[in-house]
Amino acid sequence: MKKWRRSARLVDMTRLLIQEPHKLIPLGTFAERYGTAKSSISEDLDIIHGVLGEQGVGVLETVAGAAGGVRFIPRVGRERTEGVMRELCDRLADPDRILPGGYLYLSDILGDPVLLREIGLIWATLFAGERIDAVVTVETKGIPLAYATATQLNTPVAIIRRDSRVTEGSVVTINAVSGSSRLIRTFSLARRSLKEGSRVLIVDDFMKAGGTVRGMVDLLAEFRAEVIGVCVMVESPARERLVEDYVSLATVDNIDLKSRKIAVSFGNLFTKGVEFQ
Amino acid sequence: MKKWRRSARLVDMTRLLIQEPHKLIPLGTFAERYGTAKSSISEDLDIIHGVLGEQGVGVLETVAGAAGGVRFIPRVGRERTEGVMRELCDRLADPDRILPGGYLYLSDILGDPVLLREIGLIWATLFAGERIDAVVTVETKGIPLAYATATQLNTPVAIIRRDSRVTEGSVVTINAVSGSSRLIRTFSLARRSLKEGSRVLIVDDFMKAGGTVRGMVDLLAEFRAEVIGVCVMVESPARERLVEDYVSLATVDNIDLKSRKIAVSFGNLFTKGVEFQ
Repeated sequence: MKKWRRSARLVDMTRLLIQEPHKLIPLGTFAERYGTAKSSISEDLDIIHGVLGEQGVGVLETVAGAAGGVRFIPRVGRERTEGVMRELCDRLADPDRILPGGYLYLSDILGDPVLLREIGLIWATLFAGERIDAVVTVETKGIPLAYATATQLNTPVAIIRRDSRVTEGSVVTINAVSGSSRLIRTFSLARRSLKEGSRVLIVDDFMKAGGTVRGMVDLLAEFRAEVIGVCVMVESPARERLVEDYVSLATVDNIDLKSRKIAVSFGNLFTKGVEFQ
Repeated sequence: MKKWRRSARLVDMTRLLIQEPHKLIPLGTFAERYGTAKSSISEDLDIIHGVLGEQGVGVLETVAGAAGGVRFIPRVGRERTEGVMRELCDRLADPDRILPGGYLYLSDILGDPVLLREIGLIWATLFAGERIDAVVTVETKGIPLAYATATQLNTPVAIIRRDSRVTEGSVVTINAVSGSSRLIRTFSLARRSLKEGSRVLIVDDFMKAGGTVRGMVDLLAEFRAEVIGVCVMVESPARERLVEDYVSLATVDNIDLKSRKIAVSFGNLFTKGVEFQ
């Protein structure tokens, strides 16, 4: 068997660790793969851990014992988070987004895999210390955000549907009232898509009064799920909030249809007492 | 400014290149970041390129000239592709998937970010040699697959909706007839979500007669888009096919509701003359 040089090992290990965040890789797997003593592997891991830490992009977490190993926990620092929030705000302020009726076009933002990855990283960083069993969203626009977050947390995604489809099997359904438009909407989630008692992170693209999130929380209660956090990309002011505990990245304060000006500011993330590195 | 050691540079460069596939990074950016001569950077890149190539996970592509740089093109080899197809087939053959009416439950597979990443890698590998401007799918189940693929290709995603929503602005709509059920369905795509003349990759979770894909192709024609390829995760036999040119990873040949047996085989990928490393 070919013995690997340290330089080659560092490249390969970095790749394996980074490609699947939160996945535990036993030290023995590396030792065998590279035909090297575990002590050399430990030194390699120290180097990788050091570089990742210095760059503020994450840490290597070592789990001791027979079932142990090492895993990459991605992190994003405050500065980069602020950069992403600023970029999001700048893009939201573009008057070309204004649609008839005062709606905002968001699909380009939600179609950009690079920005989505950054947002997923921010949310995964906020909840890196919690055990999350699944990321939950409601179709359609929340789905890319949910996947971006789940990829960083290495958890499955469960998607709440607005109708109940024959391809979902047995579903649990509730009717929820939209907070702003007072319309009744149906939310359903396949029974088998979420284990009872799961610890979940709710993710969505937009929140006004919070009726959609409230509906998700109520539906998740039927699964005895514990909602660990609620992450919304954009919020907009509402007279009455149906959800109090959430984090947002941007706030659309006002859309002036006449002057075509959109007033955008940072979401509540930094006011929530969230600690960054 | 701190001078980086080669070992630290290799870790950091591997991370930067792998995290954003297909993104061109100028050599000068690296030289500046590490306070090192471009010749050293070239040596580093040779090491990284060598390791990635030996492991069959991709190549570093160098673009010469003033606007040049280096980018990571992910690749997956035939062996690993076969492994993913086998895993998919095994999971599809689980009789617990059978739903009333002979439908198959797929949401757990489409909720698994690790498997999705592998599928995205396979499809990105197939079309790595083509310029792809956007990955297109139809809501809801195709969305995670589209993002997994777009992430590897570094392209935006455009999502065709089954209704037309006020939050999409001006849309192009067509009516399509489902190939198997003969139902008429509406497909709509926001005008601004796809530039005229884009080269697109169509991605979907399931195809029988191909009515959905046909509908997507017809709608994309309204955008003068060029369909470079059609990728479906699972296909199922149909008397008449409305789409001939596609690649699939698995075929559900038969579902026997009485014996609860699902006959699954490989999709057409390897019979399409696709060349792997």
